[in-house]
Amino acid sequence: MNYKESEAQTAQVNWHEFMPGIAIDCVIFGYHDKELKILILEYKKTGLFALPGGFVKKDEELNAAAKRVLKERTGLTDIYLNQFHTFGSLERADPKPMRKILEKNQGVAKQGHFLLQRFISVSYFALVDFKQVEPVPDLLSDSCLWYDINDLPPLMLDHEHIFKTALYHLRENINSHVVGQNLLDDTFTMGELQKLHETILGEKLHRTGFHRKMMLSGQLKRLGKKKTGKAHRAPFLYKFVKD
Amino acid sequence: MNYKESEAQTAQVNWHEFMPGIAIDCVIFGYHDKELKILILEYKKTGLFALPGGFVKKDEELNAAAKRVLKERTGLTDIYLNQFHTFGSLERADPKPMRKILEKNQGVAKQGHFLLQRFISVSYFALVDFKQVEPVPDLLSDSCLWYDINDLPPLMLDHEHIFKTALYHLRENINSHVVGQNLLDDTFTMGELQKLHETILGEKLHRTGFHRKMMLSGQLKRLGKKKTGKAHRAPFLYKFVKD
Repeated sequence: MNYKESEAQTAQVNWHEFMPGIAIDCVIFGYHDKELKILILEYKKTGLFALPGGFVKKDEELNAAAKRVLKERTGLTDIYLNQFHTFGSLERADPKPMRKILEKNQGVAKQGHFLLQRFISVSYFALVDFKQVEPVPDLLSDSCLWYDINDLPPLMLDHEHIFKTALYHLRENINSHVVGQNLLDDTFTMGELQKLHETILGEKLHRTGFHRKMMLSGQLKRLGKKKTGKAHRAPFLYKFVKD
Repeated sequence: MNYKESEAQTAQVNWHEFMPGIAIDCVIFGYHDKELKILILEYKKTGLFALPGGFVKKDEELNAAAKRVLKERTGLTDIYLNQFHTFGSLERADPKPMRKILEKNQGVAKQGHFLLQRFISVSYFALVDFKQVEPVPDLLSDSCLWYDINDLPPLMLDHEHIFKTALYHLRENINSHVVGQNLLDDTFTMGELQKLHETILGEKLHRTGFHRKMMLSGQLKRLGKKKTGKAHRAPFLYKFVKD
């Protein structure tokens, strides 16, 4: 599809299908081997960076809308989204960024356009292995890429605040073992689990303290030693206990 | 104010002031001496029971709207509201309860009335001492009363689900000491703290296990013994450590 076609398709969205005033934003964290990233879209011809987001259809469940939005904007499917907060400050009512996006893509931003109203944002986060997913930018976006959380581009509106709040919730939830289950193999070493926790928390943890805390939590079962060829130095393997 | 006046005032609400499709609901938990209750409104002449709720003005911050709604509907002020979830299922789009409320209060429920649209609900909870607050019903409500959480009237729409989700979040947050600070005196016995936890969790806790867990949490400082006249049997007093 060329640029002209993509512009035409963007302009054809039937905004009346959507609930007014309600946006959805997704903070998709990607972890792999000591790196923590998030997915960011760059809007075409604007230099504006944003979280993948969209709107709720009038006949659509809120959580279903979040899944659809994520799929449409990034190509990602089968991801468990955690709703973590709804943002409704007045600063996020600034229509300037959306006006710029409209003008650069359709040449005109009519007064009263759906995208220029005030939106609250119902926000979701997820944590995936960024080596396992291949994001695809949508028609509005030049790119949909993983950015290291310590090296983000400037984000539009309150999206940096949304990201930081998501990170807070992710860190608060790290001890719920659901967080790790889709990021580690079925069996893993304590070192691999500690690396995951350290990367998410953004700090070094004390090895024996971490080990003790994890075993006291009752979430882990110790299995045999990992086969490395050097039996006496091989680390133990663990798995998560099913609820 | 008599009934006619209250009806007239209800009918005069300028619905254009509000964001469409966005409701706010409040689960106000009240604790006192082993009892846990929530605030429920009964809509006049309808037999419908509901959480105190309302809408967001177009020029109003979301959290400010929650405070205003709570004040208007119950008379309560200076309460810290925790936003915990936004509900957006399609079941909650059923217009029948609101139609009944409109018909019983204004005699007519015009097609397209603001109250008959689909709303998502941004929901908040708070925990207060129910002996310290005096709820006042608003013009739409016959009563605004504390109900024991184990003996609630049938609630309209998905309000029972909202209440249960709030209770889940309250219980998850019980170990954040903020939960208890406005419910206990500045100094308190371990027994008083345990009673609060047991009431919120809805289960008996083991005395020594609870004591150990609380002291390990680092949230409490032990002071002298409580003055009871019988020094050797007097319990110790504790206070929360400031962050």
